[in-house]
Amino acid sequence: MADERFVLATYELEDEEKALKKRADGIAVGLTVGSWTDLPAAQQERMQPYCGRVEDITVLERLGEGRVRARITIGYPVVNFPARIPALLTTVFGKLSMDGRIRLVRLELPPAFVGAFPGPKFGAAGVREILGVQGRPLLMSIFKSCIGMPLDALVAAFTEQALGGADLIKDDEIFFNESIAPPEARVQAYRDAARRTEEETGQKVLYAVNLTGPVTQLRDRARRLSELGAGALLINAFAYGLDVVQALAEDPEVTVPLMAHPAVAGAMYAAPGYGISAAILFGQLLRLAGADIVIYPSPYGTVTLEANEGREVLGHLREDNGLKPALPAPSAGIHPGLVPLLVRDYGVDVIVNAGGGIHGHPGGARAGGRAFVAAIRAVMDRRPLAEAAGESPELAAAIEKWGVKEA
Amino acid sequence: MADERFVLATYELEDEEKALKKRADGIAVGLTVGSWTDLPAAQQERMQPYCGRVEDITVLERLGEGRVRARITIGYPVVNFPARIPALLTTVFGKLSMDGRIRLVRLELPPAFVGAFPGPKFGAAGVREILGVQGRPLLMSIFKSCIGMPLDALVAAFTEQALGGADLIKDDEIFFNESIAPPEARVQAYRDAARRTEEETGQKVLYAVNLTGPVTQLRDRARRLSELGAGALLINAFAYGLDVVQALAEDPEVTVPLMAHPAVAGAMYAAPGYGISAAILFGQLLRLAGADIVIYPSPYGTVTLEANEGREVLGHLREDNGLKPALPAPSAGIHPGLVPLLVRDYGVDVIVNAGGGIHGHPGGARAGGRAFVAAIRAVMDRRPLAEAAGESPELAAAIEKWGVKEA
Repeated sequence: MADERFVLATYELEDEEKALKKRADGIAVGLTVGSWTDLPAAQQERMQPYCGRVEDITVLERLGEGRVRARITIGYPVVNFPARIPALLTTVFGKLSMDGRIRLVRLELPPAFVGAFPGPKFGAAGVREILGVQGRPLLMSIFKSCIGMPLDALVAAFTEQALGGADLIKDDEIFFNESIAPPEARVQAYRDAARRTEEETGQKVLYAVNLTGPVTQLRDRARRLSELGAGALLINAFAYGLDVVQALAEDPEVTVPLMAHPAVAGAMYAAPGYGISAAILFGQLLRLAGADIVIYPSPYGTVTLEANEGREVLGHLREDNGLKPALPAPSAGIHPGLVPLLVRDYGVDVIVNAGGGIHGHPGGARAGGRAFVAAIRAVMDRRPLAEAAGESPELAAAIEKWGVKEA
Repeated sequence: MADERFVLATYELEDEEKALKKRADGIAVGLTVGSWTDLPAAQQERMQPYCGRVEDITVLERLGEGRVRARITIGYPVVNFPARIPALLTTVFGKLSMDGRIRLVRLELPPAFVGAFPGPKFGAAGVREILGVQGRPLLMSIFKSCIGMPLDALVAAFTEQALGGADLIKDDEIFFNESIAPPEARVQAYRDAARRTEEETGQKVLYAVNLTGPVTQLRDRARRLSELGAGALLINAFAYGLDVVQALAEDPEVTVPLMAHPAVAGAMYAAPGYGISAAILFGQLLRLAGADIVIYPSPYGTVTLEANEGREVLGHLREDNGLKPALPAPSAGIHPGLVPLLVRDYGVDVIVNAGGGIHGHPGGARAGGRAFVAAIRAVMDRRPLAEAAGESPELAAAIEKWGVKEA
């Protein structure tokens, strides 16, 4: 039974086997009370509740010449830091991140500590409720070729994507240029466009606007954009810092779902043996901070994420920990022929997120969206895509171009 | 001659040699205008100024089976993003960070883009001016064993460090607990203690307080702490996000130097072949954002940083780019016997930053500080430490414990 007073952090590292015990002790003391044995007894007693402790040392593999690959688990007293990601990360992987070949592979957090975080404001169910969509995956279209385009051209492109059947349309995460069509203007123009398409199709569509600007202005801008009619906020969480997500999730005036983009995160998780596992970054930390939708690499494209780490991310986004579950948006390489696999691997509570798979459709973005809609309907009806393609020329064209993988 | 309109980013990566050209084109287009060949001619013309371009492809090593280690340089139009670190990083290493074995190794920034960043408000000269110290390295003491200690005990420890001769005393970066001695109380109590020791010794001492709390409150807290008498602000820049440093550097009401701590940065730079080089993180980005003092791993301790990357960091902190030079504070493993090496490797404009090398002195922190002061004086007088130790029992004891390395 875990001790409620400690956050447990597990590291995978390489070292000399005979040095492991001393190294673990050094971490437990060095990253909490700083030093120990030199302190007078009275001070030791006073600092005891703040001192870390070694929970476990396990040798995984002997590498020869006395060196091993090992796991070390350290318990850090939760009283040492508030429930904020920068404090947690600085403590458990601040200095340690620079300590040779070492990777933070697991965090076990006491329920009370988890409960002190906001978690998603809407979560999977809340996003579905806004959209009025149950029982099928959601479809998200990634806006492409935006920088430099005037607003009327962007509205036309938005409308095509909406008419294709997208439930969500998101900005490209690299859309920072504000000289031609700034976020406020886009939000208002797309809001009006979405009303028009909804009248035509009966389907709602949420626009996720890229939240940009100086970090000190993000909260005000988020409030203004949600007031103006943004459907969601896209946040480059790892470039801005995860605490931004938490600040927005805790703000009652930010009234739309938060969508976290994984940009720059690869710098932290992609190297074997170093950094922080993707499961922690995307699965645990983003959900704690309050991301309603988590975009992260799918196992189908060229973007790097080990399959087992991807499954771990998904587990964390949904695990029963008192916070609302977040919606996964596995991304990269998604085309209509992959929808059966996506539903097999992620279930129905998933966002089918496509850029090239929509805009690259031979018939354009509207046809690209329709092909996905047909594929999603076929999978929910348990019909093979090849069969459904008989009734959907758009799906047929997509399969012609990208193929199909039945689950 | 570099083209003023482009930020050049160089990546080191592994791939098939025959795939390099296509991959480079994919980066240049994919991370700027999104797609290209499918666009109508009118749109291509309109988007041309926003489109990236391939500057260089160089094969570094053939790995066999058609695979190579190579460098690719891409030019990104500066009009695509404002002069803020999250926008820059998301563009040049957002999605790309997740693209297999790839490392961002170099950034070449046009002078006008550099000039749009604040850079250090004080810089090396400004910090010296506040302290009234010229012509010798500055001495910084790292506060240890703080969490859980009452304010009077902390003031006593502060006073010992000040009487030892420290020019700066910094919080431990893991000091987040605010239940016993919160930052505002520490700043006021240490300010008064510093006045008392200055009356006694004639020497100023700046206290660098750990800036903690939700990211949305950091600016207000920074203003309040500088108003209350903080000597500097210690910022976990990589845990909070580098834009926080820039926001503080741009704020006229934050009137004290900014000191950036490298915690968590190892997750990004430590793995060979992945992530972002330390030279970019510590040398370029922190100085652009406005860190006056940059703490980063020294080559003398166990903390990881390749010697050539360390030299590159130093070059960036001082290069003539229109911004004020920042002060390096190479850290980990520093003891008095290393001061000759430190001055040889970093010059006089360096902060000698020690924790264990001060608190671990057999005579305590005050004696530990004095040993450093004697060592710094000896080096500036071009005398061997062993000789100077004859007049300083504290330096003699330090050399007895840790040894000496003459340059």
